[in-house]
Amino acid sequence: MANVLSDEEIERSLPDGWDHEGSEIVRTYEFDDYLDGVTFTNAVAEVAEEQQHHPTIEIEYGTVTVRFTTHEVDGITKRDLRSAGLCNDEY
Amino acid sequence: MANVLSDEEIERSLPDGWDHEGSEIVRTYEFDDYLDGVTFTNAVAEVAEEQQHHPTIEIEYGTVTVRFTTHEVDGITKRDLRSAGLCNDEY
Repeated sequence: MANVLSDEEIERSLPDGWDHEGSEIVRTYEFDDYLDGVTFTNAVAEVAEEQQHHPTIEIEYGTVTVRFTTHEVDGITKRDLRSAGLCNDEY
Repeated sequence: MANVLSDEEIERSLPDGWDHEGSEIVRTYEFDDYLDGVTFTNAVAEVAEEQQHHPTIEIEYGTVTVRFTTHEVDGITKRDLRSAGLCNDEY
């Protein structure tokens, strides 16, 4: 089973723009155009399938919020941090 | 400005599967396959652009939750009910 990271380990390795909130890491991406946010959502979903690690994705007008957690351990693992970094690469 | 509907008017006209929660109407759609939920999200986004009325869309593993409200009046209007019905047509 994957190791749950400590708060210190998470803070040290959080990708740009991501916040640590309890058992989740979260980033809200901004978009001038609604459909650009939808295109980004598709890219995040593709990453999720490739990694077999699926975030919660919330689309609103002008923003897309992505949340990762590792449900099996109810905490943050290296998989979450890696997937968060891959989402940034798509932005 | 659009008319806010009464609770009674909303209940009477809610499309199949939708619930009325405060100033929102909500439906959670279920999917066996993650990417089917993503495909549905794209269809909902297209409806949103056509109608120029944008819901909150939350993608999780196996579900997509759609929420409509009319921000200008902080309530439910006919636009919300119409858009909800159009989402059902895409499911």
